[in-house]
Amino acid sequence: MSVTDDKKTVLDPFGTTAIEDYNRLYEEFGIQPFKPLLNRVPNPSMYMRRNVVFGHRDFQCVLETMRNHEDFAVMSGIKPTGEFHLGTLMTAREVIYFQSQGAKTFYCIADVEAYEDNKISFERSQKFAVGNVADLLALGFNPKKGCIYQQSKERRVQDLAIIFGRGATLATMKAIYGERHIGLYLSALIQAGDILMPQLKDFDGPKPTVVPVGVDQDPHLRLTRDLAAKFRRKYNFILPSSTVHKIMKGLDGSPKMSKRNPTSYFTLHDEPETIAKKISSAFTGGRPTVEEQRKLGGNPENCPVYELDMYQFVEDDDKVIQVYHDCKSGKLLCGEHKKQTIERVLKFVKEHQLRKEKSMDRSREILHME
Amino acid sequence: MSVTDDKKTVLDPFGTTAIEDYNRLYEEFGIQPFKPLLNRVPNPSMYMRRNVVFGHRDFQCVLETMRNHEDFAVMSGIKPTGEFHLGTLMTAREVIYFQSQGAKTFYCIADVEAYEDNKISFERSQKFAVGNVADLLALGFNPKKGCIYQQSKERRVQDLAIIFGRGATLATMKAIYGERHIGLYLSALIQAGDILMPQLKDFDGPKPTVVPVGVDQDPHLRLTRDLAAKFRRKYNFILPSSTVHKIMKGLDGSPKMSKRNPTSYFTLHDEPETIAKKISSAFTGGRPTVEEQRKLGGNPENCPVYELDMYQFVEDDDKVIQVYHDCKSGKLLCGEHKKQTIERVLKFVKEHQLRKEKSMDRSREILHME
Repeated sequence: MSVTDDKKTVLDPFGTTAIEDYNRLYEEFGIQPFKPLLNRVPNPSMYMRRNVVFGHRDFQCVLETMRNHEDFAVMSGIKPTGEFHLGTLMTAREVIYFQSQGAKTFYCIADVEAYEDNKISFERSQKFAVGNVADLLALGFNPKKGCIYQQSKERRVQDLAIIFGRGATLATMKAIYGERHIGLYLSALIQAGDILMPQLKDFDGPKPTVVPVGVDQDPHLRLTRDLAAKFRRKYNFILPSSTVHKIMKGLDGSPKMSKRNPTSYFTLHDEPETIAKKISSAFTGGRPTVEEQRKLGGNPENCPVYELDMYQFVEDDDKVIQVYHDCKSGKLLCGEHKKQTIERVLKFVKEHQLRKEKSMDRSREILHME
Repeated sequence: MSVTDDKKTVLDPFGTTAIEDYNRLYEEFGIQPFKPLLNRVPNPSMYMRRNVVFGHRDFQCVLETMRNHEDFAVMSGIKPTGEFHLGTLMTAREVIYFQSQGAKTFYCIADVEAYEDNKISFERSQKFAVGNVADLLALGFNPKKGCIYQQSKERRVQDLAIIFGRGATLATMKAIYGERHIGLYLSALIQAGDILMPQLKDFDGPKPTVVPVGVDQDPHLRLTRDLAAKFRRKYNFILPSSTVHKIMKGLDGSPKMSKRNPTSYFTLHDEPETIAKKISSAFTGGRPTVEEQRKLGGNPENCPVYELDMYQFVEDDDKVIQVYHDCKSGKLLCGEHKKQTIERVLKFVKEHQLRKEKSMDRSREILHME
């Protein structure tokens, strides 16, 4: 049983999103299902294989260039408001996946958005950014084949925001973001600049670009695609594509991990004890009693602990499938499952932190901090 | 009799303004009357002496620093959408006046506003800007003691706009500018950046700043003063001051010279014949017949030809007063007056164009065009 009974499908990148039924997104928002493309992807990512990437916009366009070994780009980023959590981990891994597939890679530190939306000063977000970029490097991002930048220091995205301003009506902005201060709308235009910068002459001009997003970020894509169409004549933009991934449930069973709700998530830099405790206390898809669970089996479809394995911490598909069946059959009880998952997560976190520590100097260099 | 019967007092920098009664501005908008300060100004400008500068916001603050020979700034600019006309001539002359009184001087080419509000591409506005800056130099602006820049290329004003975004509510922007696209609001924030840039550390920090504006531009000042107050803690801003001048009537008797109405104005670069013809055909404060005018006198208060003399083309105050009395007494008829004014204007324009021609290279240099 899910703790959320809300059936609304509301996509809001700046708030909480309740996604009850991904199928409705296909109908209501024009997101296309990813599955039909899967067997055409030369070397699909873990998220693609596991239907975590469940949708896309116009991904065929990127797929063709991948298959033909032509020029394409991947773009994503992070809002530097804290440490890497499991959501930023997902987009980072997708970016790194597309980089490994030959994409020109762009990773944006969205410090203007952090300022406008979260009131984080640029001085403060700069500190978070150093850690965030080190995380990205530790995960395997190759800075020699990619561009990492801060919105506040990248003139090209600001220039694009100024250009796009004339194409963004107040009605559109209010429909997507609600009634907000002008800075918030400006940061949305800068984000459109982020997504389209890879197509500027400085980066060898128009090219298919994929933006891996969580489903709650899709409205940014819609806005950017509108703007790309409006300014196509000036720049020859190719409308940007996206892959759309599901959002992990909160550990407490809430529909989404959220900073407003500390028991719902952990970061890659929490103390091992904290992480272990949060997973131990997590909501599960288990039954009220051991007897019932042995008899009826668990409910992994609705279990945040299973999601930790499936979305993030078990690399081998067969192993995930085994966990699923062991749970379903009643063989694997929640206590044991939590114990195994805690081990996997802590192993990952420990190794990651070592790699990250080694990446800090390079990160400062990339961010021009001496 | 005026051709306008509209009694509304609407201040809108992006549209047409009908100002029927300057006194109402004191009450409704909080503009303060300038006259009480006049005898404290060490060396008042022509516009001040003639009550063309009729109002101000917080000018005492600038006045004190002028009297004490302390650091202060003057800031204004031009929207590069065409040639210098009589409105831009007014602000340029006021900027040059304050420069001569010791102000650090800032003159902004508002190319972002030209783009957002008038759909002028940056390539096109750059061409206008070269002429505009040459005009400014021809009028006596000293580039060694002043900073001339384009909004699109000045990071500091863009950075300030990003900072200010969070302080600009949608309600405020709609109240001042109406329901417009986001680019227009962004250009308003950039203009606030223009006005406050002189107070940044790069220019030796906070200082009283005067912005000479036409009364229709006052809303920008109100917005900027609000933002300066909101971000005072971060920057130690001193709220910017303004002097507010009257707007010249259209030559055709309309309330304001306007590009939408070509018979209402001329530029400093129209052909002499065109200028002469426009003044010849101008509306005047004259009477229906020569007899009546000889008997009753003319009405200079309501005469665009008199305004040409009084606002712009007669430098000697005594001479202006003489024209006024000669008209009032019926001695100077409209035909003769127009003839004299045409002579004065064409003499000014001819000399100005020669000076401008000599300033074109320097202008290109200032705008970094080779």
